[in-house]
Amino acid sequence: MPANHKIFNDPVYGFVSVPYGLIFKLVEHPYFQRLRRIGQTSLTHYVYPGALHTRFHHALGAFHLMSQAIEVLKSKGADITDAEAEAVQAAILLHDIGHGPYSHTLESTIIDAHHERLSELFMEKINEELGGALNLTLQIFRDEYPKRFLHQLVSGQLDMDRLDYLTRDSFFTGVYEGVIGYDRIIKMLVVHEGQLAVEEKGIYSIEKFLVARRLMYWQVYLHKTVLAAEQMLVQVFKRAKFLVQQGHAVFAPPSLQPFLENNFGENDFLTPGNRLLDKFAKLDDADIFSAIKYWMEDSDSVLSFLSRSLVERRLFKLEFFDQKPGSDLVQEKLRQFAATWQGPESDLDYFILTGAESNKAYNAGGEGEEIQILFKPGWVKPMSAVIEEGLHSKNVTKYFICYPKNTRL
Amino acid sequence: MPANHKIFNDPVYGFVSVPYGLIFKLVEHPYFQRLRRIGQTSLTHYVYPGALHTRFHHALGAFHLMSQAIEVLKSKGADITDAEAEAVQAAILLHDIGHGPYSHTLESTIIDAHHERLSELFMEKINEELGGALNLTLQIFRDEYPKRFLHQLVSGQLDMDRLDYLTRDSFFTGVYEGVIGYDRIIKMLVVHEGQLAVEEKGIYSIEKFLVARRLMYWQVYLHKTVLAAEQMLVQVFKRAKFLVQQGHAVFAPPSLQPFLENNFGENDFLTPGNRLLDKFAKLDDADIFSAIKYWMEDSDSVLSFLSRSLVERRLFKLEFFDQKPGSDLVQEKLRQFAATWQGPESDLDYFILTGAESNKAYNAGGEGEEIQILFKPGWVKPMSAVIEEGLHSKNVTKYFICYPKNTRL
Amino acid sequence: MPANHKIFNDPVYGFVSVPYGLIFKLVEHPYFQRLRRIGQTSLTHYVYPGALHTRFHHALGAFHLMSQAIEVLKSKGADITDAEAEAVQAAILLHDIGHGPYSHTLESTIIDAHHERLSELFMEKINEELGGALNLTLQIFRDEYPKRFLHQLVSGQLDMDRLDYLTRDSFFTGVYEGVIGYDRIIKMLVVHEGQLAVEEKGIYSIEKFLVARRLMYWQVYLHKTVLAAEQMLVQVFKRAKFLVQQGHAVFAPPSLQPFLENNFGENDFLTPGNRLLDKFAKLDDADIFSAIKYWMEDSDSVLSFLSRSLVERRLFKLEFFDQKPGSDLVQEKLRQFAATWQGPESDLDYFILTGAESNKAYNAGGEGEEIQILFKPGWVKPMSAVIEEGLHSKNVTKYFICYPKNTRL
Amino acid sequence: MPANHKIFNDPVYGFVSVPYGLIFKLVEHPYFQRLRRIGQTSLTHYVYPGALHTRFHHALGAFHLMSQAIEVLKSKGADITDAEAEAVQAAILLHDIGHGPYSHTLESTIIDAHHERLSELFMEKINEELGGALNLTLQIFRDEYPKRFLHQLVSGQLDMDRLDYLTRDSFFTGVYEGVIGYDRIIKMLVVHEGQLAVEEKGIYSIEKFLVARRLMYWQVYLHKTVLAAEQMLVQVFKRAKFLVQQGHAVFAPPSLQPFLENNFGENDFLTPGNRLLDKFAKLDDADIFSAIKYWMEDSDSVLSFLSRSLVERRLFKLEFFDQKPGSDLVQEKLRQFAATWQGPESDLDYFILTGAESNKAYNAGGEGEEIQILFKPGWVKPMSAVIEEGLHSKNVTKYFICYPKNTRL
Repeated sequence: MPANHKIFNDPVYGFVSVPYGLIFKLVEHPYFQRLRRIGQTSLTHYVYPGALHTRFHHALGAFHLMSQAIEVLKSKGADITDAEAEAVQAAILLHDIGHGPYSHTLESTIIDAHHERLSELFMEKINEELGGALNLTLQIFRDEYPKRFLHQLVSGQLDMDRLDYLTRDSFFTGVYEGVIGYDRIIKMLVVHEGQLAVEEKGIYSIEKFLVARRLMYWQVYLHKTVLAAEQMLVQVFKRAKFLVQQGHAVFAPPSLQPFLENNFGENDFLTPGNRLLDKFAKLDDADIFSAIKYWMEDSDSVLSFLSRSLVERRLFKLEFFDQKPGSDLVQEKLRQFAATWQGPESDLDYFILTGAESNKAYNAGGEGEEIQILFKPGWVKPMSAVIEEGLHSKNVTKYFICYPKNTRL
Repeated sequence: MPANHKIFNDPVYGFVSVPYGLIFKLVEHPYFQRLRRIGQTSLTHYVYPGALHTRFHHALGAFHLMSQAIEVLKSKGADITDAEAEAVQAAILLHDIGHGPYSHTLESTIIDAHHERLSELFMEKINEELGGALNLTLQIFRDEYPKRFLHQLVSGQLDMDRLDYLTRDSFFTGVYEGVIGYDRIIKMLVVHEGQLAVEEKGIYSIEKFLVARRLMYWQVYLHKTVLAAEQMLVQVFKRAKFLVQQGHAVFAPPSLQPFLENNFGENDFLTPGNRLLDKFAKLDDADIFSAIKYWMEDSDSVLSFLSRSLVERRLFKLEFFDQKPGSDLVQEKLRQFAATWQGPESDLDYFILTGAESNKAYNAGGEGEEIQILFKPGWVKPMSAVIEEGLHSKNVTKYFICYPKNTRL
Repeated sequence: MPANHKIFNDPVYGFVSVPYGLIFKLVEHPYFQRLRRIGQTSLTHYVYPGALHTRFHHALGAFHLMSQAIEVLKSKGADITDAEAEAVQAAILLHDIGHGPYSHTLESTIIDAHHERLSELFMEKINEELGGALNLTLQIFRDEYPKRFLHQLVSGQLDMDRLDYLTRDSFFTGVYEGVIGYDRIIKMLVVHEGQLAVEEKGIYSIEKFLVARRLMYWQVYLHKTVLAAEQMLVQVFKRAKFLVQQGHAVFAPPSLQPFLENNFGENDFLTPGNRLLDKFAKLDDADIFSAIKYWMEDSDSVLSFLSRSLVERRLFKLEFFDQKPGSDLVQEKLRQFAATWQGPESDLDYFILTGAESNKAYNAGGEGEEIQILFKPGWVKPMSAVIEEGLHSKNVTKYFICYPKNTRL
Repeated sequence: MPANHKIFNDPVYGFVSVPYGLIFKLVEHPYFQRLRRIGQTSLTHYVYPGALHTRFHHALGAFHLMSQAIEVLKSKGADITDAEAEAVQAAILLHDIGHGPYSHTLESTIIDAHHERLSELFMEKINEELGGALNLTLQIFRDEYPKRFLHQLVSGQLDMDRLDYLTRDSFFTGVYEGVIGYDRIIKMLVVHEGQLAVEEKGIYSIEKFLVARRLMYWQVYLHKTVLAAEQMLVQVFKRAKFLVQQGHAVFAPPSLQPFLENNFGENDFLTPGNRLLDKFAKLDDADIFSAIKYWMEDSDSVLSFLSRSLVERRLFKLEFFDQKPGSDLVQEKLRQFAATWQGPESDLDYFILTGAESNKAYNAGGEGEEIQILFKPGWVKPMSAVIEEGLHSKNVTKYFICYPKNTRL
């Protein structure tokens, strides 16, 4: 008798078993295969060279954890039918299918639509193809299904997405600060009055998870060199779009061309004749860097300077401040750079960049959104009422200014 | 006082410390930075999705092991000057700098020159730029330096290249069969009469290393699905070059265009006016897949069929045989496929592929090329005289036939 | 609803889940808890200081792998009832329960009975207590149950015992040479015509497993310093028994006393009035070293010399030979040591030790005992017919002589 | 030329290299070898069965980290002579040599002296034997040496002791919550104005380290089942001492006997005729459990009940409270247990136990004791001024009550 699972190798978990049937069909779908060419962590690999893992691998990993979570919950008596189990597995598998090239970095530059909305559109498209096989999946994904804990496993403060990405990103970056006890946490999950909760003895694992998440933000996701590279990538694209829309021909792969010429928004995806979803599905990380490499030689000096700096890794310097830096500081940086820049003054906005990043490790007090701890006697408390000190629920905002380091034009 | 090393994160070894000075300058060179965009293991990630690590990371890792090996050898009294230490570090760092996109897979398809020769050309070019700073490095790399053990550390049956790639590839694929005791092996290295040798108590580690290498060949590098994907990639390029050279315009990034139009060989790199090395340095994995994606829609049905199959991962089936498969078997596969193929018969050679792969884990008996074991009393024996059974020095050749699985045209 | 499993922490596998019911009852039994005080690898920790893991942990680990194997086999259609699953889990949990202090080292010195026979006696005793709950377990353990693959999972060339001990011993020693792909092997298990077999694509994992086992023998289990320490431990006990049986009072914990005074054999365990099994169950590693420490001060100079040397780790030197060392060599060592030894000549046999150790990584050709490989078309071949070169089925014997290094009396 | 280092295997770090000379001589000393028989984490293995690692292994590990720290500090220009390097290595190697059986658990029960003071006494004794070779080591250990950073590496809020024990304990328990980036932290160490400091970019690693330490306290060191077992061990000893001192003969190994008969304090160690240090050096974990096993059959029912419960792992229940539990609660537990206990009322104090445990992850504000962060411009700030939220400098105290769970007499 043949195996009823397809096995994927994963250095993080050893193996991921995908059952033949709906789930395997989704994995084989070209929309999903496309995630093989979309990095999970954008330009993080400029600082952590191992961080080249993809959305494809992350989605499989989150699926794997979901399978374990379902098994644990069922062993503790949670009522989950086979159809619900498959649907919630499909939902986590597809939760990021809407991500485009360089994920969050270019999310609002290439198109103006949130990736979760695009994930939903992709799911609807596949659902049509499969004659409604994803109906239940979509209900769960949209949080319209009565058993709310299923949605919470897909999207919540303790969902399988977060458990996988922290584990996976810390594995591939080598940043131990992000290691979490994902298997311990999953073993402690329980359904209580229709909501996902964590058994009391899992408190320290949850605290560790929250701390790890916060540290990963500052040490990896918002690392100042990573952020500088990603800011540069955004500027490259802003400039390329500006030039194309001004009539300056910029070389680009045909798949990328329409996204330079237009500023597509969510509504454009809904216009059937557009086939915009399919056009978007053609794009991936390869097109972006392939294009940027030609732009190194472009006649526009803003585009070529930014492209060369990015490809050859002469990254901008980025400084964080606890408060918004005064305009005098920005003016000074502008003045310094202007002295070396031969183009018009209006170009300077591509080089002296300011912005803010914030990070809230945990969202305390959100109605019904908190991680719930189940105590032995049978009552739950939100995490914020259990351990104050480790929660770090404060929203930390850091302001930055980013500018060319050694200006070699 | 500032640190005198730049630290790179590496999930495999924790950290890699690169001293400021020559070595850091080499790492920052655009030729070296380009290795960030060249995967170490071609399309292996189609089977082992974590295997996206790059030549850049491998080169840093091999450098790291070299630094440790030098320290060990010096602590045991080997005579290695600071200049020699730096030169051999530079040599291992640059040993793969000549690799092009998809490394070995496209090595003889895009151009007709061996990557080691190209590495040498790149080193010579950088050496010019740096006013001869790599003179000693080049001597060692070419095995022209009297202290032969330095070359053996760079290129031999127990070099730092092999120690790193087995360790790294097994880490990122998750294939434990390839795990070796690299640190134990390095601790056992010793210089004996000018040659690299291994202390007696390292025998089992060496045996394990040889077995691991053989297993990695069959389980990863020559995995039949990996090989099928790579064979397809070769056919895609063969067809694209054929078409371009027949005058059929095929869309391609400008950087790739000359390599489709011409069949460059080693001599073309030596013609100064060509600036071919610089053109070659512009190419990387991104261009290849970006191009293949456009070719999915090409009017040539061979090119579009192969490209679509590869991008959407409908991989050919590959079967291994101990002996060359008879022409009747090949004919049968041709006949089967011909029945579904509407193009000319001459196209069939792109689809029914045959070839052979061989693997020799260890090369016993090569004059002066064997791994030498140093016994306590002070004499050495070649590994093949120490442990016969584990050596697997037999050259194993497997023949394959590869063809489309489910022909959906 | 409470969890229906008790979770044990295991740095090797993360967690081991033990279902409440029979299995948990067995784990809680004092006979099983006693295994917490019996090291898995005797004096191996004298060379590999991390190797302090116990038979308790090994038994839980082997149980864990058994649970996974059952799940895999059932998913491939093997007919395993719940009762059979529990029985085979109990059998692997208890397979080593008969081990005494320092396991194999003192196996024939303290008593004259094989540990497997003692395991059976312990199981029978517990079976009585539990009113026959282990009847099926005993049938499987004795290979009297028709579904032979169940016994093969407990005791065979690819049983869960071996998979766990190689994995666990290499983890705690830090010897990577012993790392095996236990999860890959388990995923490849299948039942074919009532026998355990391995799917074709698991061949390389099996080969790696056989090689790893052989390397662990020479590098860990039969490491010459480990063997020297264990030989010394045997001599300490031989001397203590000799003295006690000669009427020389030797201090010993009450639990140990009867085992010094008598030479118990298997039959003595069967004499009901003896309660010998219970007396044996009182013994563990702590008694042995506690006693040896007092013996450091004993008036008998043989006993005190051996005890001091062992406790303060002045270990004998051990040399291996491919052939039995000639009597002249032994005579010479005797002469050398005699020159420094003031006691009678008859003592010398405690110090100049000879013996042999052999290791056969794989037993090819044993009727029905080989690892069977299942090929896709549905036929099996024994491993020895599939890959000759990696099998190492040759029985390697090494002879040793062992003697005090620096005689300080 | 022979190696100038002895290599120890360590699954945590791979290898530990010990230079021949003073350090190796210390490792071989019987006082140090004794640490092979003293567990690092007392009865923690009752909950985490892998936690059987010893003070011996911890001391080697801390020595290993010290060697790395010295190398890092020297590479950044710190002035450390070879003699100082060796002395600080010796100091960390011997910092725990004064620990007795079951380390902290029995620290004040077997004798009344702090282990650090005993470590000093052992060092002084060895120093005499070695003719003053540890003079500098003792100065550093006692914080009497001008270069204070050397002492801080041995004993401070960021010393090599803590880095090793968190790493090692989380490795052997399998509790990922304790994993720290020890190598990252060490790479960030720097000497600033004679004090140990951490470079700015190491802040997150420090924060992670502080959090990990706090979590390890609650999840491992003060785990309620671990604490219950250790409380029981203390009661066993209290009762045995009480009985012996009352004239009730209790069986015990000769080495243990004097410590039951007397209540030795620090001064007794200073009385030369006592040879108390040598007597103490004879004790280790083996004696304790060997003795407790005989006590299972003692005629005193308190001693036998406690001993049986501990050996057969019928552990007391322990409950934590944020505030000191009221006497009514304690009274109730006493009443409940009294109903099943046939001995005198005065025995009850051995069974109904109360106490408090507190844990302060970080000591902010201690004059000159804080972890100092070195910022790029060259000024330092204490950690508590850099990141408030993660510091957890609050002293958390938890009160407990501990009592027999299922009283089976």
